[in-house]
Amino acid sequence: MEQAIAYFTEILGSAHVRVSHADRLVYSYDGTPGYQALPDCIVVPGSTEDVSAIVTYCHNHYIPIVPRGSGTNLSAGTCPTQGGVVVLFTRMNQILEVDTQNLTMTVQPGVVTKDIHNAAEVNGLFYPPDPSSQAISTIGGNINENSGGLRGLKYGVTKDYVLGLQVVLPNGHVLATGGKLTKDVAGYDVTKLIVGSEGTLGIVTEATLKLVPRQEAKSTLLASFRSIEEAAKTVSLIIEQAIIPATLEFMDKGTIAAVEDFVNVGLPLEAAAVLLIEQDGKQEVVQEDMKKVESICRHSGAVNVTMAASETEAEELRRARRAALSALARLAPTTILEDATVPRANVADMVNAIEQIARKHDVRICTFGHAGDGNLHPTCVTDARNTAEMERVEAAFEEIFAAAIDLGGTITGEHGVGEMKAPYLAWKVGETGIEVMKAIKAAFDPRNIMNPGKLFAKEQRKRVTL
Amino acid sequence: MEQAIAYFTEILGSAHVRVSHADRLVYSYDGTPGYQALPDCIVVPGSTEDVSAIVTYCHNHYIPIVPRGSGTNLSAGTCPTQGGVVVLFTRMNQILEVDTQNLTMTVQPGVVTKDIHNAAEVNGLFYPPDPSSQAISTIGGNINENSGGLRGLKYGVTKDYVLGLQVVLPNGHVLATGGKLTKDVAGYDVTKLIVGSEGTLGIVTEATLKLVPRQEAKSTLLASFRSIEEAAKTVSLIIEQAIIPATLEFMDKGTIAAVEDFVNVGLPLEAAAVLLIEQDGKQEVVQEDMKKVESICRHSGAVNVTMAASETEAEELRRARRAALSALARLAPTTILEDATVPRANVADMVNAIEQIARKHDVRICTFGHAGDGNLHPTCVTDARNTAEMERVEAAFEEIFAAAIDLGGTITGEHGVGEMKAPYLAWKVGETGIEVMKAIKAAFDPRNIMNPGKLFAKEQRKRVTL
Repeated sequence: MEQAIAYFTEILGSAHVRVSHADRLVYSYDGTPGYQALPDCIVVPGSTEDVSAIVTYCHNHYIPIVPRGSGTNLSAGTCPTQGGVVVLFTRMNQILEVDTQNLTMTVQPGVVTKDIHNAAEVNGLFYPPDPSSQAISTIGGNINENSGGLRGLKYGVTKDYVLGLQVVLPNGHVLATGGKLTKDVAGYDVTKLIVGSEGTLGIVTEATLKLVPRQEAKSTLLASFRSIEEAAKTVSLIIEQAIIPATLEFMDKGTIAAVEDFVNVGLPLEAAAVLLIEQDGKQEVVQEDMKKVESICRHSGAVNVTMAASETEAEELRRARRAALSALARLAPTTILEDATVPRANVADMVNAIEQIARKHDVRICTFGHAGDGNLHPTCVTDARNTAEMERVEAAFEEIFAAAIDLGGTITGEHGVGEMKAPYLAWKVGETGIEVMKAIKAAFDPRNIMNPGKLFAKEQRKRVTL
Repeated sequence: MEQAIAYFTEILGSAHVRVSHADRLVYSYDGTPGYQALPDCIVVPGSTEDVSAIVTYCHNHYIPIVPRGSGTNLSAGTCPTQGGVVVLFTRMNQILEVDTQNLTMTVQPGVVTKDIHNAAEVNGLFYPPDPSSQAISTIGGNINENSGGLRGLKYGVTKDYVLGLQVVLPNGHVLATGGKLTKDVAGYDVTKLIVGSEGTLGIVTEATLKLVPRQEAKSTLLASFRSIEEAAKTVSLIIEQAIIPATLEFMDKGTIAAVEDFVNVGLPLEAAAVLLIEQDGKQEVVQEDMKKVESICRHSGAVNVTMAASETEAEELRRARRAALSALARLAPTTILEDATVPRANVADMVNAIEQIARKHDVRICTFGHAGDGNLHPTCVTDARNTAEMERVEAAFEEIFAAAIDLGGTITGEHGVGEMKAPYLAWKVGETGIEVMKAIKAAFDPRNIMNPGKLFAKEQRKRVTL
């Protein structure tokens, strides 16, 4: 490794190669509790050429590489569990172009997601993907994880907005994919294969993103219900009425209590569930849709429906939902946030299954998430130092994944597989799926240097029978 | 091959294995002029198990397999150029489910695209992809080719509506991908890799499609212009005004004349270009958008703007555009339809380049296409028996592909690479792109039995310098 560090220092300068124990500690973990491993060094390239040189060296010397944005991911996807080189993009953080004619933005991987939202907005445009970590997450991380967010139902996820990429492949070669094109069928869709590949197939060094026109109006309401079934039924009824809201978020009783205690916005503590619903679009459409939504909520048993009268009030309500994770994190030393996802029609069954599983294993799980797209975040508040409890937590999450699969869902809707869920991947994709994915990985990265240990586990978990 | 035929007859019954010369002739070509090759036999499986048995046999005996829908493709993607077995899906043609809660439809590959539109519509829903061949093309073909159509700008293409697949891999194993899920990041996105892979990675035996609510209103107008630049400028202005029309189609002077001669709907023969523009959505939004569109057309020099007063009139205008290929096909014995695609802002430059190239090579090329998404269809009316002219045609198309690439475009927007454009693929994706795609192909299909000869050419064309 000393030779590698000398080489990186030669090409990047000593300011951009970090090897102190303190630096290595900083990058030894990400947003995922329970995973930590020291990298051998951290490098900060300034260009695609730098990245290519680093990767070529690592390829020649079989050194693991972990590309890392802000490390907000929740599946241990950026934890350097096999050591090696962590690559940061803090110097490659420029918005290179906003093209208002073709409605595209070209960015380097280190740009913070929120800055992309802002740059689109000042040009009268809109970049829809909005992971909750948007204030600190980077677009490079979003692309690697195929980040979702609150607008997934109506607008899709990061993948739907990546038109082209520049990627340094595991052999150091630079690949350009796609372009400012709505239609392009020239060969396999390598762009969409790279998005969501969790840094295991190459390093993204530039991306061309699709933008859409900014919506002229937005409206927000909060509805509370006496039961989870009523809330879930409301979600289905709204969509059956041909309304696709921009946001359709759910919080259960435990989450409501934690959030209210944290942000004090007057959430109804007696409710079993609340829905936060937003619509955007033309003024008249938003009004019409939200009137219908309000009426559907009332007819399906909402105890209370509050329509935000101003943007300030709307922001309060949104803040309540966004605070869910932070609020739950205050309850206990360790917060484990999951993202089992089911077809929308099965949300109530899934929430009930989660409650039942939590009771069975005597663990505390609160659930919130994106009801409109079936992407739930059962969140366990626990203490990683309590070994006995952690075993019960793990058993509970295994059953939750199994329940999601049984309901036609998946083990992860937007957080990725990483190291944490690798043992469960076969539950969703089957042994044949694992074989195909391993073959793809080997085709790109025969030396297994790009984020090794992620996606594919040494041992698969046996399927729990409920 | 005799043993293979005996085996297929044993598992499928003799009614579903065709070996006569007449049958083999029928499936020796597709919608692409100039390509023909006899398959050894044609099989008609009735189930995924049948397909798996056929593929397993072919895998074990290194026999080429060509999956084929209605054969409407325009890049020789379903021409059995290396012989082998053509697989038809006329028995696997069922709509298995329309799920109005999750807004999905599950289909077998042999369902005709138009039937999917209709099945969605009777449930108050909408399946947007609308390739011009929709009345006869099948969804299996659409998925293999990632078919586009007239609604690409606003609604995207087939890939954007495929949520899950059942695929028989080249080794005969059956893979299930995705599901009724808006969000799913469990491993590599094999679903989107299969869509558009032109039958080279496996055989799709079932697909789960995404549907959206049906739009309540629609409005159609036709605007004619004295120059291509005015028409192109209009396209840009509309989108800059934050209007994304459902359809934004373009026809040049030559196409207008051919269409008018064919369908007699009163197209303006003196115009240099016409735009067919449609918007759909809520009644009031459609009206507002179309009023703005009309005003933009007039301000940017439209000689005439006709707003369809009724659905009958709108259908006339749409019929005119849809008739473009048939109308041009009447002009000469051979029609070669291409689909070079550029970023939207470069449409005028591309149309002008096409005209200049046609003049230079003394060939007749008319251009129509999807101006909103930059997907143009320069169409050469010629005679395949005239060897000297065909050489000029080929030279002209080479220059057209080169011009598209120079304008940030691609060699194919929606027709696929197939055998026809394989020699040009490297122009778009580079040598590194070819290497990556060949590695993916080898990972799925190391024996190269699935639609061999497509995508990858034995010899790449040298890049023409204009």
